[in-house]
Amino acid sequence: MARICLTIEYDGTAYHGWQIQPHKHGDTVQAVIECALAKIVKHPVRLHSSGRTDAGVHALGMRAHFDTTTRLPEPAYCEGVNACLPRDIAIKKAVFVANEFHARFNAQGKLYRYSIYTDSVRSPLQRLYAWHIRHDLDLEAMRQVASMLEGKHNFAAFRSSSCAAQTTIRILSSIQINQVGKFITVDVYGDGFLKNMVRIIVGLLVAVGRGKVGPEAAQQMLSKQQRPREVFTAPAAGLCLMRVDYKKTS
Amino acid sequence: MARICLTIEYDGTAYHGWQIQPHKHGDTVQAVIECALAKIVKHPVRLHSSGRTDAGVHALGMRAHFDTTTRLPEPAYCEGVNACLPRDIAIKKAVFVANEFHARFNAQGKLYRYSIYTDSVRSPLQRLYAWHIRHDLDLEAMRQVASMLEGKHNFAAFRSSSCAAQTTIRILSSIQINQVGKFITVDVYGDGFLKNMVRIIVGLLVAVGRGKVGPEAAQQMLSKQQRPREVFTAPAAGLCLMRVDYKKTS
Repeated sequence: MARICLTIEYDGTAYHGWQIQPHKHGDTVQAVIECALAKIVKHPVRLHSSGRTDAGVHALGMRAHFDTTTRLPEPAYCEGVNACLPRDIAIKKAVFVANEFHARFNAQGKLYRYSIYTDSVRSPLQRLYAWHIRHDLDLEAMRQVASMLEGKHNFAAFRSSSCAAQTTIRILSSIQINQVGKFITVDVYGDGFLKNMVRIIVGLLVAVGRGKVGPEAAQQMLSKQQRPREVFTAPAAGLCLMRVDYKKTS
Repeated sequence: MARICLTIEYDGTAYHGWQIQPHKHGDTVQAVIECALAKIVKHPVRLHSSGRTDAGVHALGMRAHFDTTTRLPEPAYCEGVNACLPRDIAIKKAVFVANEFHARFNAQGKLYRYSIYTDSVRSPLQRLYAWHIRHDLDLEAMRQVASMLEGKHNFAAFRSSSCAAQTTIRILSSIQINQVGKFITVDVYGDGFLKNMVRIIVGLLVAVGRGKVGPEAAQQMLSKQQRPREVFTAPAAGLCLMRVDYKKTS
């Protein structure tokens, strides 16, 4: 039995998120990759990912492991599988890992990037990868609130109502906001995330950047676990899982 | 009668190029915009563009003019029309111009950008906007050949067999090749282009960068109007019309 860890890039536009959902219509990224892997290793495969992504969310560096009795050279799990995958999904890397390795439980940190495009007119070429905001954003105000969110907090106000996580305490290591021309990126690094957490953080930051709410909104969300009406969940298309970190390079 | 010049951005992925083709199936960018304009100005509209783009080619700054008897404030031709356009096409700007202005005949220069993504594995997130090359490219060799193409030349070897232009003499002002990480961009600026000209220039440059042909291939194409077998037309998806310049800002 060999355990293999994959690094996966995908354009989430056409998918109902990462995870297989037995009672819903439409392809998921996980289902499409499991199907391609099964063709190469000649037996059914179950992928265990570092986490899920929602419908329309992208990934440059999703991680997932699987077990197989078919031991092939590492490139076969990459190039061989890619030949069986659609153009919007690719295995970037495949490596053998110890049988104790688990893509989800061994993950130590995740980097998400949220992209915002600010202009008075929408951009056809950015529509699938950035949130279009018609207004200028106050970056200094956004950075001030971002720094309030860093650290260990109860992020109960930063999750979808359908989130089933038992604890809502998370450690947010850093939020970096950068601007290049009309693009603003929000890089969020943490040990784990609740459902929609990054998108609600960005929703808060944009509400602050537009002057709809002040820093006290962030305070209220962290201390009273209440989300103001002005803070909504940023659209999925702007979000990309950039990287998952593990203790050892694997 | 008012004449209006539009600046247009589009993702060409879903379209059979810019120009209306009466005998072919599928939408064209021109047809979709004419239809949206007609809804706003309440009469049929004929768009005259600075030029055509092939199927799958994108534009950040296509220009086109049209005439209308319905005089509205400039923003109506932009925001109003955008509300009638699909998400992969947008009017970025609309301005009144003189009745002598012609988007094609008054154009003085065009900037095209061709994007190349070099990596051993294909990129799902770049598949619609860059040409994937698995090999490293010799940028110095490419720059040397690019400089040979600059200037006034007979570009007969740099056009599609279906190109109907009467003269094949063009002035290429500059070709700039830049690299950022895994991305290489080729910026081509000139007064006018033959059908597929930029894509064949990039095909030549990539053949040179891979060591398939040397500088003598470029010499042969320019002097003998013969294209070597190793030089093929680069894929449409990597190409984007960035900007069209006119004498006066209009």
